[in-house]
Amino acid sequence: MLYVIIFSSSRLNMLSKNACKFSRLNQIQRSITKNFNTCRVLSAEIRGLGNEPDAPVVNTPVPGPKSLELTKQIATIQQAGTIQFFTDYENSTGNYIVDADGNKLLDVYMQIASLPLGYNHPDIQKVISDPKNYSIFVNRPALGTNPPVNLYEKLTKIINSCAPKGLNMIQTMACGSCANENAYKAIFIRYNSLMRGGKDLTAEDLNECVVNKGPGCPDLSILSFKGAFHGRTFGVLATTHSKTIHKLDIPSLDWPVAPFPRYKYPLEENVEYNKKQDEDCLREVEQLIEYYNNVKKRPVAGIVVEPVQSEGGDHHGSPYFFQQLQRIGKEKNSMLLIDEVQTGLGATGKMWAFEHFNLAESPDLMTFAKKMQIGGYFYSEKFVTQPYRIFNTWLGDPARALLLEETLNVIKRDKLIELNEKTGEYLLSNLKVMCKDYSKLIANARGLGTFCAFDGASSKIRDDLIAKMRNLGIQCGASGDVAFRIRPSLIFSKKHADIFIDRLEKSLKSF
Amino acid sequence: MLYVIIFSSSRLNMLSKNACKFSRLNQIQRSITKNFNTCRVLSAEIRGLGNEPDAPVVNTPVPGPKSLELTKQIATIQQAGTIQFFTDYENSTGNYIVDADGNKLLDVYMQIASLPLGYNHPDIQKVISDPKNYSIFVNRPALGTNPPVNLYEKLTKIINSCAPKGLNMIQTMACGSCANENAYKAIFIRYNSLMRGGKDLTAEDLNECVVNKGPGCPDLSILSFKGAFHGRTFGVLATTHSKTIHKLDIPSLDWPVAPFPRYKYPLEENVEYNKKQDEDCLREVEQLIEYYNNVKKRPVAGIVVEPVQSEGGDHHGSPYFFQQLQRIGKEKNSMLLIDEVQTGLGATGKMWAFEHFNLAESPDLMTFAKKMQIGGYFYSEKFVTQPYRIFNTWLGDPARALLLEETLNVIKRDKLIELNEKTGEYLLSNLKVMCKDYSKLIANARGLGTFCAFDGASSKIRDDLIAKMRNLGIQCGASGDVAFRIRPSLIFSKKHADIFIDRLEKSLKSF
Repeated sequence: MLYVIIFSSSRLNMLSKNACKFSRLNQIQRSITKNFNTCRVLSAEIRGLGNEPDAPVVNTPVPGPKSLELTKQIATIQQAGTIQFFTDYENSTGNYIVDADGNKLLDVYMQIASLPLGYNHPDIQKVISDPKNYSIFVNRPALGTNPPVNLYEKLTKIINSCAPKGLNMIQTMACGSCANENAYKAIFIRYNSLMRGGKDLTAEDLNECVVNKGPGCPDLSILSFKGAFHGRTFGVLATTHSKTIHKLDIPSLDWPVAPFPRYKYPLEENVEYNKKQDEDCLREVEQLIEYYNNVKKRPVAGIVVEPVQSEGGDHHGSPYFFQQLQRIGKEKNSMLLIDEVQTGLGATGKMWAFEHFNLAESPDLMTFAKKMQIGGYFYSEKFVTQPYRIFNTWLGDPARALLLEETLNVIKRDKLIELNEKTGEYLLSNLKVMCKDYSKLIANARGLGTFCAFDGASSKIRDDLIAKMRNLGIQCGASGDVAFRIRPSLIFSKKHADIFIDRLEKSLKSF
Repeated sequence: MLYVIIFSSSRLNMLSKNACKFSRLNQIQRSITKNFNTCRVLSAEIRGLGNEPDAPVVNTPVPGPKSLELTKQIATIQQAGTIQFFTDYENSTGNYIVDADGNKLLDVYMQIASLPLGYNHPDIQKVISDPKNYSIFVNRPALGTNPPVNLYEKLTKIINSCAPKGLNMIQTMACGSCANENAYKAIFIRYNSLMRGGKDLTAEDLNECVVNKGPGCPDLSILSFKGAFHGRTFGVLATTHSKTIHKLDIPSLDWPVAPFPRYKYPLEENVEYNKKQDEDCLREVEQLIEYYNNVKKRPVAGIVVEPVQSEGGDHHGSPYFFQQLQRIGKEKNSMLLIDEVQTGLGATGKMWAFEHFNLAESPDLMTFAKKMQIGGYFYSEKFVTQPYRIFNTWLGDPARALLLEETLNVIKRDKLIELNEKTGEYLLSNLKVMCKDYSKLIANARGLGTFCAFDGASSKIRDDLIAKMRNLGIQCGASGDVAFRIRPSLIFSKKHADIFIDRLEKSLKSF
C-alpha cells in the first residue's frame, strides 16, 4: 500500500505544478474521485452514519460554558487538567461527538483512538439491549477460575476473525498497560525457563524469589525505543519514552533504549537519508543487545515495538526496518513483541499494522487494547506455562469482549478495513497538498490508512491549530512534541474526510 | 467488634464443656439464635435470594463431564489450568452458582471475592436493562479527556456513600493491579516533589528521565510485607510475596520486605505471644526504613499493607499493629497505602476493613477493586499534581461504575453491612467449635464479619477438604499454604451459614 501512496503522491505533485494554488485542491479532489469509486459504493453500505448531521454544528467556544462549569466541579474530586470537554454520549452519533453544550463535532480522535465504530452504532446497541446478554453484564466473572459456558465459542470467534497467523491463542486483560505488562511476563518466563534448561530451582532459590531475590528473580530486560509508548504501569513505563511528564518522579529500570528511525518526508525524496536512519538504528539495537547480554549482564529477553510510534509523535518505521528487527531478535534470542494497542483492529487499513511490513512470520507476541474494547495479547503454544503465572481476578471483561465480537462482525460485513484503506489514501493525498500549500505551518504528512498525521512548525502552532479546528467543529488530537494526529473511527468515509480537509484549510488560512 | 467475637467465643467454650460432642453444634446454634434475632429480621428484607434453591444440588462430581470437556476445548486456545468449572451465569442466582453440568453450589468464594450481591441480583439486572443506561455501555469513553456529562454526579454519589473520612477524591482504574500501580505512582510523585522542595529539574535531568535515568527517575521504594499480595504487574508484583509461582522468572526490585504478624489462635489464649509478634514486626519495619533511607539510599516513600493478608493465607494484624504502623509511617515520611482490594466494600462487616483498627486518621491512600466492580483509589488533595501523570485511555469503565453505584444503594437499603457483621459473628462461632471438634484436621478459626478462614493441618488436608466440600455443593477457595478461605457475597445470611457448617462437618467426618 505504501507504493500506492507514493505513486499517487507523485501524480499529485505533477498535477500541482500545473495548477494555481487556490484551485488546486478541487482539481485534486476531482482526480482522486475516480480512484474512490469503490469507496463511494462502500459508503452507501456503511451502517452507523444514519443519524449524523450533515456537518459540524458549533454554537459556543469548545469547551463551552457547561463543560467549563462541569470541569470546575469535578476538579474538587479528581485531577481534571486533562479534560477536553464533557460529552453527551446519548446524543453523540456516528462520527459526531456531542459535547455538554450541544456542539456537534466531527470526531477524528475517537476517545484517544479507542472507539472502533463511532458513537451509538446500531449493531452495538443491539448487543446491549438483547436480554440474552444481560447475565454477562450483571455477573462479572473471574474468567480464570469460573469462565462462562460460552467462553470458548466467543474467544474462538475472535481468534478466527483477527488473530495474526500462527498466534492462535489469546489472553485477555483489562487494559493496554496490563496487556503489555503480562506479555513482558510471558517473555521473561519463557526466556528464563529456556536459560535454566529445564532444571528446577532449589527450595532455597524459590524462597529467595518470594522476596525479590536470587536466580528466581533474574536480571532480564526488554529493549524498547526512544519515543515509544507502551503504557504507564511500572514495567511498561520502563519501556515508555514519549514524554517527560509520563516518567518524572517514578523509579525505573536499567533496560536498553534504542533509537527509532526519524524519517524525512516526502519519503520518495529522502530515500537515502531514511535508509541510513534504518541502518543506524538497527546497528544500535544490535550493539545494545550485545552490551546488555554480555557486559551489563541483563540479557535482553524481548524487544517491544509499535508499528507506528503513536503517542510519541507518529513516527513510522519502514518494512525493511521491521524485517531486520525481527531478524536481529531471532539471532539474539530476544523475542519480538509488537504492540498494536493503538494501531490495531483495522486502524491502518489492515487488521494489524505490522501486516504492512511483509515480515517473514508473525511476531512472537502481539498486544492489543483500545479499539478492541478489551486489552490482551495473541500468543502461540510455546508460551503456555504452569497455571497462576499469568493470572488475575477478572482477566479482562467478557461484557466488553461481547462488543468486540460484534465489532468484528460489522468490520467484515461492511468491509470497513477496505474502506479505511481507501479513505486513508484519499485523506493522505489531501494532507500532502495541504503541507505543500501551507508549508510554513505544517509539514511531513504521513500515514497508513486513516492513521495519519502531520507536524506543526512548532508545538505552539500545532496546539493553536487543534484549538482552531475544535472551534470549527473538528475534535482532534496531538502526539509527541509537534504532531497533529488523526485517529478516526472505522466508519470514517470520504464525506467526513472532505469536511476535515475543508476545516483544516480554513484553520490554516486563519493563522 | 473483635471483642464481641472473643466474648462470644468464651461463652461458647464454656457451653461446649457441658455438651456431648455430637449434640454440641445444635445446642450452640440454639444459643446463638437469640443474638441473631436482628439478623433474622434483616434476612426477611434481603433482596436477591428469591430464586435460590433450598439447598445445594449436586448431580455429578464437580467439575462434571461438561466442564471437563469445555476445559479440554479451551486449553487449545489459552492457559486452562486454573479453571475450577465452567459456569452457567444465566441460571446462577443469589448465593448459588450453577455449573455447566447443572450442579447448584452454595458459593462462599464468589468469583475470588469479587461479586458483591451474588448472581443476577434483581436491582443490578434493572440497571442493565434500563435503556437510559445503554449509551454508557455502547460508547466506552476515555474518561480523562471526554468524561460523560454525569460523571461528577456519579462519582460524588460513590464518594458520599463510601469514601474513607478525609479521602474525598477518587481515581478510577481498570483493575486491582492498576489501582495499586497508580497509587504507588501517586506516592512517588508526591515524595519526590517534596524532596525537590519545589525546585524544577534542569532540562538535562528531564531528558535523562525519559530514558529511565537521573534524578527524574529516583531510586525510591515501597515497603511491603512477607505474605502480602498487591497484584501481578511489575511494580505491584515487587510488593507481592504470597507464592513463588507468582514471582518466578520475573525481574524484580530491591525494595524492603518486612515480616507481618503470624498470630496464634485463639487470640485470647495467646495474648503475650501475639503482642510480641506485633512488636517484632514493627521493630523490623522501623529498621528497614532506616536502612533503606540511609544506607541503601532507596528512601521508603510508602508502606503498602492489606488489613488482612488475603491471598497470602488470611493473616490478620491487630488494631495495635496498624496504629503503630501508621505512627511509624508518619515519623519516617513514608506514606501509608491500605490495600482494600479484597477486604473492602463491607466484606468484613465494616465498609472498609481498616475501620476495625481505630486509626488516628484514614491512611494516605486506599485502593479498591473486586467487589467495587472497578479498580481505583481514594485520595486527598495533597496528591493532586500536574495533568497526564496519573492517566491512561480508559481510566476504568463507567459501565461497571454504574453497577457499583447501584450496589451501594442496595447495601444501604438492605443493611447488608450489618447483616455481614451478624452473619460473620454466627459463622465464626461455629467455625471455632468445628476447629475444636476436628482439631486434628483444622485449626485457627479467625475472621472479621464473614471474611473468615481456618487452616488445614496440611496443604493436602486443606485441598482435600475443598474438593470434598465442592462435591457436597459448596464452592469455596484456598489462600496461602494451608488456609481455607470463606469470601461469600454480602447477601450471605444465617441460613446459608447453616448449610455451609453442615457440609463442613460432613466433609470433616468423612476424612
